[in-house]
Amino acid sequence: MSTEHAVRVPRTKEGRALLDLIEPHLARIRAEAREHDERSAFPVETFAAFAKDGLMGATVPAELGGLGVTRLHDVAAGLAAVAAADAATALAWHVQLSRGLTLTWEWRHGEPPVRRLAESLLRAMAGGEAAICGAVKDHPRSVTTLSRDAAGRWALSGRKMLVSMAPVATHFVVHAQTRVDGEPALTVVVLPRDTPGLAVLEDWNGLGMRASGTCDVAFGDCPVAEDAILSRRPVGGHNDAVLAGQTVSSVTMLGIYCGIAQEARDIAVGRFAAGSGEPPAAAATLLAEIEARLYAMRATAGAALTAAQDDGTGESDPAERGRRMMTPFQCAKMTVNQLSLGIVNDSVTIVGGAAYTATHPLARLVRDVRAGWFMQPYSYPDGVSYLTAQALQRRRDNDYVSARAVTDQT
Amino acid sequence: MSTEHAVRVPRTKEGRALLDLIEPHLARIRAEAREHDERSAFPVETFAAFAKDGLMGATVPAELGGLGVTRLHDVAAGLAAVAAADAATALAWHVQLSRGLTLTWEWRHGEPPVRRLAESLLRAMAGGEAAICGAVKDHPRSVTTLSRDAAGRWALSGRKMLVSMAPVATHFVVHAQTRVDGEPALTVVVLPRDTPGLAVLEDWNGLGMRASGTCDVAFGDCPVAEDAILSRRPVGGHNDAVLAGQTVSSVTMLGIYCGIAQEARDIAVGRFAAGSGEPPAAAATLLAEIEARLYAMRATAGAALTAAQDDGTGESDPAERGRRMMTPFQCAKMTVNQLSLGIVNDSVTIVGGAAYTATHPLARLVRDVRAGWFMQPYSYPDGVSYLTAQALQRRRDNDYVSARAVTDQT
Amino acid sequence: MSTEHAVRVPRTKEGRALLDLIEPHLARIRAEAREHDERSAFPVETFAAFAKDGLMGATVPAELGGLGVTRLHDVAAGLAAVAAADAATALAWHVQLSRGLTLTWEWRHGEPPVRRLAESLLRAMAGGEAAICGAVKDHPRSVTTLSRDAAGRWALSGRKMLVSMAPVATHFVVHAQTRVDGEPALTVVVLPRDTPGLAVLEDWNGLGMRASGTCDVAFGDCPVAEDAILSRRPVGGHNDAVLAGQTVSSVTMLGIYCGIAQEARDIAVGRFAAGSGEPPAAAATLLAEIEARLYAMRATAGAALTAAQDDGTGESDPAERGRRMMTPFQCAKMTVNQLSLGIVNDSVTIVGGAAYTATHPLARLVRDVRAGWFMQPYSYPDGVSYLTAQALQRRRDNDYVSARAVTDQT
Amino acid sequence: MSTEHAVRVPRTKEGRALLDLIEPHLARIRAEAREHDERSAFPVETFAAFAKDGLMGATVPAELGGLGVTRLHDVAAGLAAVAAADAATALAWHVQLSRGLTLTWEWRHGEPPVRRLAESLLRAMAGGEAAICGAVKDHPRSVTTLSRDAAGRWALSGRKMLVSMAPVATHFVVHAQTRVDGEPALTVVVLPRDTPGLAVLEDWNGLGMRASGTCDVAFGDCPVAEDAILSRRPVGGHNDAVLAGQTVSSVTMLGIYCGIAQEARDIAVGRFAAGSGEPPAAAATLLAEIEARLYAMRATAGAALTAAQDDGTGESDPAERGRRMMTPFQCAKMTVNQLSLGIVNDSVTIVGGAAYTATHPLARLVRDVRAGWFMQPYSYPDGVSYLTAQALQRRRDNDYVSARAVTDQT
Repeated sequence: MSTEHAVRVPRTKEGRALLDLIEPHLARIRAEAREHDERSAFPVETFAAFAKDGLMGATVPAELGGLGVTRLHDVAAGLAAVAAADAATALAWHVQLSRGLTLTWEWRHGEPPVRRLAESLLRAMAGGEAAICGAVKDHPRSVTTLSRDAAGRWALSGRKMLVSMAPVATHFVVHAQTRVDGEPALTVVVLPRDTPGLAVLEDWNGLGMRASGTCDVAFGDCPVAEDAILSRRPVGGHNDAVLAGQTVSSVTMLGIYCGIAQEARDIAVGRFAAGSGEPPAAAATLLAEIEARLYAMRATAGAALTAAQDDGTGESDPAERGRRMMTPFQCAKMTVNQLSLGIVNDSVTIVGGAAYTATHPLARLVRDVRAGWFMQPYSYPDGVSYLTAQALQRRRDNDYVSARAVTDQT
Repeated sequence: MSTEHAVRVPRTKEGRALLDLIEPHLARIRAEAREHDERSAFPVETFAAFAKDGLMGATVPAELGGLGVTRLHDVAAGLAAVAAADAATALAWHVQLSRGLTLTWEWRHGEPPVRRLAESLLRAMAGGEAAICGAVKDHPRSVTTLSRDAAGRWALSGRKMLVSMAPVATHFVVHAQTRVDGEPALTVVVLPRDTPGLAVLEDWNGLGMRASGTCDVAFGDCPVAEDAILSRRPVGGHNDAVLAGQTVSSVTMLGIYCGIAQEARDIAVGRFAAGSGEPPAAAATLLAEIEARLYAMRATAGAALTAAQDDGTGESDPAERGRRMMTPFQCAKMTVNQLSLGIVNDSVTIVGGAAYTATHPLARLVRDVRAGWFMQPYSYPDGVSYLTAQALQRRRDNDYVSARAVTDQT
Repeated sequence: MSTEHAVRVPRTKEGRALLDLIEPHLARIRAEAREHDERSAFPVETFAAFAKDGLMGATVPAELGGLGVTRLHDVAAGLAAVAAADAATALAWHVQLSRGLTLTWEWRHGEPPVRRLAESLLRAMAGGEAAICGAVKDHPRSVTTLSRDAAGRWALSGRKMLVSMAPVATHFVVHAQTRVDGEPALTVVVLPRDTPGLAVLEDWNGLGMRASGTCDVAFGDCPVAEDAILSRRPVGGHNDAVLAGQTVSSVTMLGIYCGIAQEARDIAVGRFAAGSGEPPAAAATLLAEIEARLYAMRATAGAALTAAQDDGTGESDPAERGRRMMTPFQCAKMTVNQLSLGIVNDSVTIVGGAAYTATHPLARLVRDVRAGWFMQPYSYPDGVSYLTAQALQRRRDNDYVSARAVTDQT
Repeated sequence: MSTEHAVRVPRTKEGRALLDLIEPHLARIRAEAREHDERSAFPVETFAAFAKDGLMGATVPAELGGLGVTRLHDVAAGLAAVAAADAATALAWHVQLSRGLTLTWEWRHGEPPVRRLAESLLRAMAGGEAAICGAVKDHPRSVTTLSRDAAGRWALSGRKMLVSMAPVATHFVVHAQTRVDGEPALTVVVLPRDTPGLAVLEDWNGLGMRASGTCDVAFGDCPVAEDAILSRRPVGGHNDAVLAGQTVSSVTMLGIYCGIAQEARDIAVGRFAAGSGEPPAAAATLLAEIEARLYAMRATAGAALTAAQDDGTGESDPAERGRRMMTPFQCAKMTVNQLSLGIVNDSVTIVGGAAYTATHPLARLVRDVRAGWFMQPYSYPDGVSYLTAQALQRRRDNDYVSARAVTDQT
């Protein structure tokens, strides 16, 4: 493949079908992007329409009624197409798509109770009935905790933040701290939205990605069923095997930033469309640099998406497999973040003062593109620490959820 | 001087007095910045308080009742102090301060009628009664034109954009195209706000600098008095003498971006205040880079401000003098724009996701800092073309107002 | 593929065989690199050994006795492996490898006389008897011209520069200006080294790539046989079809700069090998940035190599095919040049003053890496002009040899 | 002052006299630069001529027979002028100039024996009889030690590296580790070149700065007179007062890199001298960026030179004074290193392949400019650590000589 095609043209027939299904939605998503951004309003209608067309089950296996898009590259291509129209919509949709991928893994490789749970969720996603958010990051003033009450029932309390797609969520997959035999552990549980004590706080007011419905979710003694536990692992386990799932969960987001950069580039090129005169020297130079950097970011994202693709046969050492997937992802993430920021900035320079109004598409891209640096699993400083340790082969707890939990306890 | 002092510590006693007068206003300006930004609301009360304290006449000569701050460096230092609290307020205030500087030049060097006009305006500024905006940039769909009506009276029609401080303006200094003996010319006229046919369109909705009151102003057959003409020059005159005034008008804005960068740096450093742990390697490296770049941008701005200071004895060739002032300004502007953007961006990286909410001070700085690239006289591409021509000693019409007028006519 | 493999691990069995054949030579190439660099001496023994092992016919089809490495990616992987040991050796070897690729095209698609010529040259390359240089760039004071003498025989006169691998060359493929029916044309002819009037001037004294044998070659009325003409095209033909061959000729050189960057990175990482303490913050940050950029440059080079691969069925419009191959190449070249320069520079920073001695491997890499910016077909300014024109869909003569010839004639 | 003048035009009459004295030497220095560089040969004749003209005593007070150039800015201006002709000559000359400055401090503020020693050395420098090198950095395999022999006499043993100007040195000022009352200390002693056991190893073979005579110096039980001790301080003293002298010793070197960048810029501009056509877009853009960055680096260097100027009245806390001088220097050094490297690199891009021959002036600048990153007192990683600690007000041993001695002892 040429990177003309990287993160743009899907590679599987399922991927092509996905793009075909998305296409009719794009004009409306684009047309409404400005207003959703201004009002920080979640595009509820788009997600209803996505559900109707099966797009909320795009990554669910065909056996379970989904579209069966399992190629990460093709998921990223779908996200890039939506992101060029509205990045916030793509960011929210990504939550559902990546959940489909990780639940599929649980369905194929988990213990029987986990497989049953995963299957029922996946079927509901495919049917357009389930929209499932992840809730990982604790609010700074609250550690989310799972504990048994006097009657021995599990109950969840705490507060999570940065839960995207929350306005239409039907379920939340929540990371919580707990104790197993006295030792601190991380447990992942699934809560339906109507769980008593659960509240979605629609308070998102971001610099960008304002239509992504990125909310806080509060839990007050929420009852948790025994069969709602998805996984459990010790805190401080130094277990690099988890990097595989963390990579799959987030790597397709690279497509979002490719979509943003593509849109910025198209606007910049449009400034000098046929008949509008020759660009001054600096604009001509920036245009060429934009072309080269867009190519490089797509090629790099494409390579990381391929590296993260895994047939799941699990032959190799799971920790090594985790690092083998995460390292390319982090290299690509750093590259994509820097290049997309530069492309958007230079596009603004080319377009000039007109781009400096709040309602100009580039002004939205300026704000949206900056989100990439805060995406899971690693911020820029954490990504640097991870890559340095890998280069120097130093041992380190690379599980960011576990590492934060250790900090909470000290 | 060390640049510890550059663009921070004033160099004259008038400059020190200015800083002392500003100081009591800063806490309130800072406290209200967020709300003004959200509502895109002009800080009317601040400007009323400024007028009361003589700050609207800071650059008016003492003989005419002003504070007599004539050192460009000290004007920039005042703007930097205000900009650290709220950049948009500083941007609007700059309009008045630079008008004081250029009108003082007219008062000292102009023909008698111009001197009379300048004096009356300067006295009104010093008294807090006049707030005078510049209106240079034509709306894309309108060329502002001054012509004689059937009765031989001057009338102005057209539409200007990007007129900062307009909500509280009492006068507008307007560039208009006209004809003198059949040849195209640029005329600069002064219009009181209550001129029939003049309308301030409070429609500003910028990506940043949202409290700067940067409006469109429309003129519909506005009558212009004969004694309201400030200057006149031919279109396409290749007259580099005008670069002197254009430099003085804009060079102190460098202080605004120094203030923005300082504020971003302070927030980033605050992230690792005593007791909050050691920064990870990447954050430590970025902090040092921020320190170095903040120093460099202040030193460079300081040098350009000094180069633009001119005792007005006018010994040298006026065209050469114009270039001698403009070239350092453009070098510094390019440097300040790039470095301040980088400092704000790296500060966001250091602070992390918390900075990605619309109401975080850094999120405002991200949007405000980008304005620097669109400030008069040259955008980045125009600045590049100017500097290249200077380096290669190529002849070129460097008067941006004239160059645009030529384009309008072709 | 993951880019762990990009431009490192070959993709075909012929490519793997190539790497296996190279392997035994690498230790000696690396050991002698310093001395060859100091003396600006061509590694004659290495090329004799390469010839013996069939490496001088690596890209010759198996039917003609070669190794049949036709995958551009695998050619680049071979060059990267050699370049990590000595970049200058790789640069000289590239001349032969790319000639094999382009002659194979002529052999498959040319007119019968051209096919015969190509076949005999390819067979000699495979047998280790022919080392064939390209001679494209005229000396600034000489236009190389092919004309008929009084007796109607072709004769070549002029002077070429930057002819790499010349010390061991057996043939030269020379671009010359000529006239066909009075119209200026470019003709490509093949001259054996022992042609009367041909002189190799072993005068190379480069900043870097000093062992590459990059010489001037002078032609004084050299007789040219009728059947030694490889191709002919009009000057100023605006023929983008030639971009295909120009891409294939040069795109595998990207592997050389990947090899240089890899070597620099390995030295930098080695500075903090186990037991040598933790890196200071700035070194840790630079190491992570190096990892990310090395990944990005490999991924980008890999994508361009794939885009340049062409099955030669020639279905599409040849001009469009030329651009489709050249555009990714230029995007990748710009990226690879910038990233490799940065990686080498940051590696020097990490290693410290020890790297600032002439004989330190990094000091050689500092000099070698800069060559990338001057490689055919486009310099950085020409590459920018090409990419801008493509982005804006502006028509332009993209054939750099023709464009220079037009300049010569004006 | 405008930075048109920064680090170019001297500010005192002594500075102007210095520039006038240098002027007649520049043509020859420039003419011989290439050959000295090729042969790594020290410009002995230049230094003889400098001595004759009093230039080896430029910074010696007039009372002691010197030229009395005490303004750091003017010293840097002199170095910049020489560096534009040949940076290596400037680097070697800097050794003498900075010694004049620091010895003057000892002469004014030291204890009587130190004052006598300083005076005699300064008079000899002024008379052209003394050329005094500093020897600070130990060879990696040798700690230079001062100890008493059985007879109670001081003897020095060890090996220093990176001693510039050594080929013509008459004295060496050597940092040595010793013990005072059992505690480790750093002692600085002065040794005449003809001291028994002292050997200058003329082995310098740098990547750049090849004519600077930067040698190793070996000491084998060299006798040291009691009155040859210049200073003594404890190891690990956390004494920021020493930063003042370390700043003065090195800050004027910023002028050298300004001279290098100026020369590169002049060559790049010369490429498009009148009559040679318009630059392509990328070259035009790079030219403007070069102008802006050259301005910024000069302004920043100029500010740091002013900050480091100190009237020596010593009112303030000496540790605070040390940091107040060092911090601007480090900010400026980081800026100057990055900008000068970029300017040279972009100049090469503008000039094109012609600059890639070993004997092209730009090829020398490519190698010379990289030295800036290794100049005392801090490398880039150490400079980052210093600035981060300052920004966060963290305590740290900033005395690089002491910090290394601590490392040696652990």
